[in-house]
Amino acid sequence: MTKIDVVVREVGMRDGLQSIKFIMPTDKKLEWARRETEAGVTEIEVASFVPPKLLPQMADAAEVVRGALEIPGLTVSALVPNLKGAERAVEQGAHKLNCVMSVSEKHNQANVRRSVQESIDEFGRIVGFVRGLPSNRRPQMCAGLATSFGCTIEGDVPEAHVLTVVEKVAALGVDEMAIADTVGYGNPAQVRRIFSGARKIAGKLPIAAHFHDTRGLGLANVVAALDAGVTAFDASLGGFGGCPYAPGASGNVDMEDLVFMLESMGLKTGVDLARLLEVRKFIESVLPTDTFAGAVAVAGLPKNYRSAASRAAA
Amino acid sequence: MTKIDVVVREVGMRDGLQSIKFIMPTDKKLEWARRETEAGVTEIEVASFVPPKLLPQMADAAEVVRGALEIPGLTVSALVPNLKGAERAVEQGAHKLNCVMSVSEKHNQANVRRSVQESIDEFGRIVGFVRGLPSNRRPQMCAGLATSFGCTIEGDVPEAHVLTVVEKVAALGVDEMAIADTVGYGNPAQVRRIFSGARKIAGKLPIAAHFHDTRGLGLANVVAALDAGVTAFDASLGGFGGCPYAPGASGNVDMEDLVFMLESMGLKTGVDLARLLEVRKFIESVLPTDTFAGAVAVAGLPKNYRSAASRAAA
Repeated sequence: MTKIDVVVREVGMRDGLQSIKFIMPTDKKLEWARRETEAGVTEIEVASFVPPKLLPQMADAAEVVRGALEIPGLTVSALVPNLKGAERAVEQGAHKLNCVMSVSEKHNQANVRRSVQESIDEFGRIVGFVRGLPSNRRPQMCAGLATSFGCTIEGDVPEAHVLTVVEKVAALGVDEMAIADTVGYGNPAQVRRIFSGARKIAGKLPIAAHFHDTRGLGLANVVAALDAGVTAFDASLGGFGGCPYAPGASGNVDMEDLVFMLESMGLKTGVDLARLLEVRKFIESVLPTDTFAGAVAVAGLPKNYRSAASRAAA
Repeated sequence: MTKIDVVVREVGMRDGLQSIKFIMPTDKKLEWARRETEAGVTEIEVASFVPPKLLPQMADAAEVVRGALEIPGLTVSALVPNLKGAERAVEQGAHKLNCVMSVSEKHNQANVRRSVQESIDEFGRIVGFVRGLPSNRRPQMCAGLATSFGCTIEGDVPEAHVLTVVEKVAALGVDEMAIADTVGYGNPAQVRRIFSGARKIAGKLPIAAHFHDTRGLGLANVVAALDAGVTAFDASLGGFGGCPYAPGASGNVDMEDLVFMLESMGLKTGVDLARLLEVRKFIESVLPTDTFAGAVAVAGLPKNYRSAASRAAA
């Protein structure tokens, strides 16, 4: 098997679908996951364990996780907002819990009615819960730090504050961290500073990057994060998942463009780009929305496109 | 006056307009140039001196150059394909000649029916012509190297070949060079290699970057070029100028997004982003096209946006 240089993780099934009104049928979600896994994506955030009342798009979270676990080779992750969500996800056997809090005090209060410190404490309880499980039922616990590059309510989020939260959360003994530009405020200089700082603090703890392309800087921020040593990135097929309050605004970094960039740079993702573009066509056929983003799907692959693996072999 | 860290140059009036069928009236072109200059852009490629038969959108090149010369503070540049074009541009008093050739042999043959070496020789004749002019009529001569990152006909353009052309062209005594990813094939790793190599060869000769966002990598490539020491970038307001053969494909790097990124990174462009967004609205009102690109114009500025100058002052 080819060594992977950079892991790309699909989050559109959660971050994308939760931002549109349309509720994707469970079987289509699972077909999406299966097809994208076959294209070479090895980790998908398939659902969110928030109350279905708040997010009807995620009401089938349990069923989706169970179905996704049947897909060979796929790491099945799920977003959990708190201990209760973590318990529900573990009940279904999710491989990884993506626990999320906002680093911005006001954003966290608005979202989960907790202070940042209270959310860190909740993370601690989730770590305790996970560690208490028998090893064959124990998922990975990834701590997601939302609004780390700015906040629609507070504006600036001081970098020193972000790094303090990184330090506290790393000390809890999580398995992984994801630092997120939830609202598309980040810029490459800031990305380089924050990820360099975080990696220094967190030592060997893997740190992933989650960027939104809201202001067109998604891939530019990926370049900066690569420079800072980041090797795992979230993205969504078709780049959808824009803010519902900004019509036409793009969402997560577009998966096809991300894979195109990384593979062209000689960084192996394990993803077959031609097959990935077919999977995009599949979700375009399912989703009743014209808000797909992404340039490669529109412009086509360059005449000289080669995967990183075939570049290395040449 | 504030020191500028990075120069952004408007090329949409040439690269953008030449790729759409609509012919913008001369007075609207000049209003665009005036408004964008007032927003802080100091250099605009206002026209192309190719035969009007080939590009009717540029038939008013002489009039546009003369009109643009009346705009205080603006460096007026014009594309010239050969010595004859250079003579026409000088006749009108253009401040800068952007002489263009393709580094890809087949692309250059297809475009101007010359070999690469023949185009280099023509550049030499243009340098001779410019040097023979009295100093008060002598424009800057910038050599543009198109298809330096790949070619729709040849596919790969070997990096060693690009650097050989850079070396030969630098030796002619041009005032500036622009290395261009004409078709949106470039990636950040390649950009870093080529610009680092070119800067090593060209010494103190200024080298600008001209990227297309065809496959979404425009700003990512800017980040890589900044790392390689590049401090001048071409862009187009509204990001238009996509290839006419790929409907929906984006064109030059979007000017608003570029300025947003640079200023957010703390790099002074001298451009007032809010005013620039107003100029975009102006061209949207003039151009009968829905092919505008750019994310900031859609999503709006972040709550915490500050120019690099005000960041530095804080």
